[in-house]
Amino acid sequence: MIAVIFTSTRSSADEDGYRAMAERMDALAREQDGFLSIVSVRDPATREGISVSYWRDEASALAWKQVAEHLQAQELGRELWYVEYATTVAEVTRTYRHPPAR
Amino acid sequence: MIAVIFTSTRSSADEDGYRAMAERMDALAREQDGFLSIVSVRDPATREGISVSYWRDEASALAWKQVAEHLQAQELGRELWYVEYATTVAEVTRTYRHPPAR
Repeated sequence: MIAVIFTSTRSSADEDGYRAMAERMDALAREQDGFLSIVSVRDPATREGISVSYWRDEASALAWKQVAEHLQAQELGRELWYVEYATTVAEVTRTYRHPPAR
Repeated sequence: MIAVIFTSTRSSADEDGYRAMAERMDALAREQDGFLSIVSVRDPATREGISVSYWRDEASALAWKQVAEHLQAQELGRELWYVEYATTVAEVTRTYRHPPAR
């Protein structure tokens, strides 16, 4: 399983456009082959956000990066929506949960 | 490099105690051998948080989990501060940044 960790700081530009894109990308990611889950948090006060998506394998994580509509969103992200961001790709080795039975 | 992804939902209990612990654990993590960086975001509205810490290797990530004061915090987390949480350990394969020169 692959984890894609996306850490970003939102600019103050285009709040409505950003929200619409974020919802659309969440929905689109869920439709992709190999998608497992996604969790996203942003603090409105600091404008910092972390989003972690989980994928079956490297190939499905890479394929998602190249989906045309996602590429357009990435370009608008660089130009408009984010002051800065980082994407880290990592291979999951283990997970602990509490409570355990979920 | 190892990423430790900690995803949690805060209970409504003990706001001051939780904040003090969170600050202390952030400071204590930074003192550990093999610590590289940490980024944490919580949305006060949903009470969901994601914290990602990066470690030189598996051994330093495991050692941090076993630090006595951190073990106490983990126990209070289970009993009091968190409705639920998950910890995922992953081996970093690559990182992209924008803007690139940072």
